[in-house]
Amino acid sequence: MDVRFVNPVLDSIINVLSTMANMTPEPGALSIKEDTHALGVVTGVIDFKGPNEHVSTAISFSKHVALEITERMLRTRPDDIDEIVEDLVGEISNMMAGGAKGKLEAEGYDFELTLPSVATGENHEVPHRIEGKTILLPFKTDAGEFFVEIRSN
Amino acid sequence: MDVRFVNPVLDSIINVLSTMANMTPEPGALSIKEDTHALGVVTGVIDFKGPNEHVSTAISFSKHVALEITERMLRTRPDDIDEIVEDLVGEISNMMAGGAKGKLEAEGYDFELTLPSVATGENHEVPHRIEGKTILLPFKTDAGEFFVEIRSN
Repeated sequence: MDVRFVNPVLDSIINVLSTMANMTPEPGALSIKEDTHALGVVTGVIDFKGPNEHVSTAISFSKHVALEITERMLRTRPDDIDEIVEDLVGEISNMMAGGAKGKLEAEGYDFELTLPSVATGENHEVPHRIEGKTILLPFKTDAGEFFVEIRSN
Repeated sequence: MDVRFVNPVLDSIINVLSTMANMTPEPGALSIKEDTHALGVVTGVIDFKGPNEHVSTAISFSKHVALEITERMLRTRPDDIDEIVEDLVGEISNMMAGGAKGKLEAEGYDFELTLPSVATGENHEVPHRIEGKTILLPFKTDAGEFFVEIRSN
């Protein structure tokens, strides 16, 4: 498990959602996630590739949180998870990973980021591209829950 | 020409870039743009569709501004305009249009937004989907210039 990633990712997603969606996520207790299914209905994944390591981060939103973030950021509220929401979740994944990469660089670690992959649907598989142990970080917001996963090889 | 759009679009893009990229765009003088080519190297277009009108908004960034915004928002700086930058410009177009839609709604106007189209390259055609007169709004930032177009049928 790559616990170096926990605080940078946590700080980054709180910063992104508070700045851009006027949302104050409250982190819950860390755990190990054995199941490979997503806990939300729309999930963005980005990988951090270093010289010797490969870490995959995912962010999975409940429908209500995803639609609420879309409404707050884009002033439009689709009825369901559509391409607008998927693209926005991809971009939020980018910003979460970018913020974490910046914090890790400040600590002397250098990673390349991949483009985001987005998957949707009830009970979909999280599209991690590596096998490994997964740390689960749950968050509560005024609009409901979302979940961050950090998997490392 | 649909001058209703000028202030909502202008306020929205200043808000998006100041909040998300710590950039303070200074608007220049309005003009009518006759040429159909983009003034930047990466351009996002979103349409506003109302019951009787169709307005197309574009935002076109110089390479330096596009890379600088990418670095500030995603903490990664590609060497050139790549898929990361294109996706981000699409999402900035979404946010600019979403913010303007919210302001227009507050004034009693209701529009549906389309998904963004993004085009790149030196001297590319702005991918407007309608014909009509085009208002040009130039902006200066600490990183260089960008340009907003508002075309109405």
